[in-house]
Amino acid sequence: MVFPQLTPAPVIYLVEPFGGSVRRQNPNMPHVFWDDAAVTRGDGIFESILVRGGKPQNLDKHLQRFARSAELLGLPEPGREHWIRATEEAVADYCRERGDAPDIEAKCTWTMTRGRETTGVPTAWITVRPLPKKVLRQRERGVSVLTTPRGYAIDLNVPWMRDGAKTLNYALTMAALRWAGEQGADDIIYVDPETGRVLEGATSSVLMVKKGGRLRTPAPGAGVMAGTTQAAVFEHAEKLGWKCKTKDIYLNELFKAESVWLVSSTRIAARVKRLDGEKLPAPDNASEIRQLIEDAIG
Amino acid sequence: MVFPQLTPAPVIYLVEPFGGSVRRQNPNMPHVFWDDAAVTRGDGIFESILVRGGKPQNLDKHLQRFARSAELLGLPEPGREHWIRATEEAVADYCRERGDAPDIEAKCTWTMTRGRETTGVPTAWITVRPLPKKVLRQRERGVSVLTTPRGYAIDLNVPWMRDGAKTLNYALTMAALRWAGEQGADDIIYVDPETGRVLEGATSSVLMVKKGGRLRTPAPGAGVMAGTTQAAVFEHAEKLGWKCKTKDIYLNELFKAESVWLVSSTRIAARVKRLDGEKLPAPDNASEIRQLIEDAIG
Repeated sequence: MVFPQLTPAPVIYLVEPFGGSVRRQNPNMPHVFWDDAAVTRGDGIFESILVRGGKPQNLDKHLQRFARSAELLGLPEPGREHWIRATEEAVADYCRERGDAPDIEAKCTWTMTRGRETTGVPTAWITVRPLPKKVLRQRERGVSVLTTPRGYAIDLNVPWMRDGAKTLNYALTMAALRWAGEQGADDIIYVDPETGRVLEGATSSVLMVKKGGRLRTPAPGAGVMAGTTQAAVFEHAEKLGWKCKTKDIYLNELFKAESVWLVSSTRIAARVKRLDGEKLPAPDNASEIRQLIEDAIG
Repeated sequence: MVFPQLTPAPVIYLVEPFGGSVRRQNPNMPHVFWDDAAVTRGDGIFESILVRGGKPQNLDKHLQRFARSAELLGLPEPGREHWIRATEEAVADYCRERGDAPDIEAKCTWTMTRGRETTGVPTAWITVRPLPKKVLRQRERGVSVLTTPRGYAIDLNVPWMRDGAKTLNYALTMAALRWAGEQGADDIIYVDPETGRVLEGATSSVLMVKKGGRLRTPAPGAGVMAGTTQAAVFEHAEKLGWKCKTKDIYLNELFKAESVWLVSSTRIAARVKRLDGEKLPAPDNASEIRQLIEDAIG
């Protein structure tokens, strides 16, 4: 097995936010200023994109969500063609410098912040780097998951509320993941404590497989980010005759499902093999499901 | 009138988080890496401290809250003596380079993040810089304020919930302030939409002055950060015979109060001169109140 993280230097491109030039940044030098809104306020947006076979995967859905996040936060519209080109350049560099191995995988991250307080111009950059070992391991072996309340209820009636934007404000998510880690779990699923309604993983969508070729996922909305991978899976699976439904899922249903998966861009799919300490048995069709998901994002 | 922001270069010191050395950082060079948890996750804490007469003000309360924030987020304990010494060095440089003018004011910010993903060592630094013009203007002229719901309700029963930590996750606060700005207001006060209970300002505590020398502020707790300036004011005012009470305040009380103030470290006190479009008349004792607050933090 090859561990690409043995050559960990990422490729970084700084992106001029209003179109135009990109330039490569030395990854051993910092490039974010002390007064950048990302640093002082977590005021920025991001996307994580899987790179495979020299190409960013599921690119269209990431572009759409990135643009939507920018709109929600009142950031300039990310120029579509411009981000595509910058991503292609960064990915090409990364792959070439690793010998263009055909099975190369990487994580590409887009970040756009409100910029420096002293300039007001958004800061934007792309990184391409090896997938963390943990991601590869969880893909292969599945994850042990604890359920927990979201910890806060969003009020969508508030005029300035910006739910659905993929911002850099993950301090609470990180606290929840540390809590799960202290108990030996790998990940969490947010569940409404009053109703048992399933929301999402820390950084993933919940996908439930039911007998009879049925796929289910919670509807995006308050507390449920629209997932790019989940959307791609549903589009692809429907063409193959799967019955796909976006509707409420309750915790007790997860225990009775054929299988439960956390799907996200770079980990792709991690089967939930243990939920709140209870073993969820491996389904007969695990490799079929995995293939379905892999094909969907390709 | 002197505008100190005409010489805007801040003094920046990088702080070695486990005690030991500090070193001055060129403010024209970035020092935060692309994989710092502050940038990728907003995973860090901060304090803003007023510098006046060559000294950081209300230092003890900031040290206490900074330590508490670190504890809540599972960050290393900030070495008390160490941060004091680093702050003194940075402030001394700043004042000396501005000719040690006795009336010099500045904003000192402490930041500590969970550090780079690739190292896991916290990143910590201190900046000392001029007060923004806006802050000086609002101190002098007061502020026009809109009330708004918090937008989310924190569930303190969740085991990993970290309410009360002063983190870098301010994207929603910034969205609320932009919303207020679009309507010509300067600031916001969060109010519970169901009960009318007053919480806090965007980055300040609400202080209500009532007839008969009475001061009131909402009790810290879910949605109300413990304010360092508010605490100093209460301690000082009690010694002078003011009756100070920390208890629930309801929106209708603000309209009937003698005066309403937003208190915070660097703006110190801004009188609310307009609330949800309604004028709050200036009290006879405005200068007395202001002096009381100024003396409290000195």
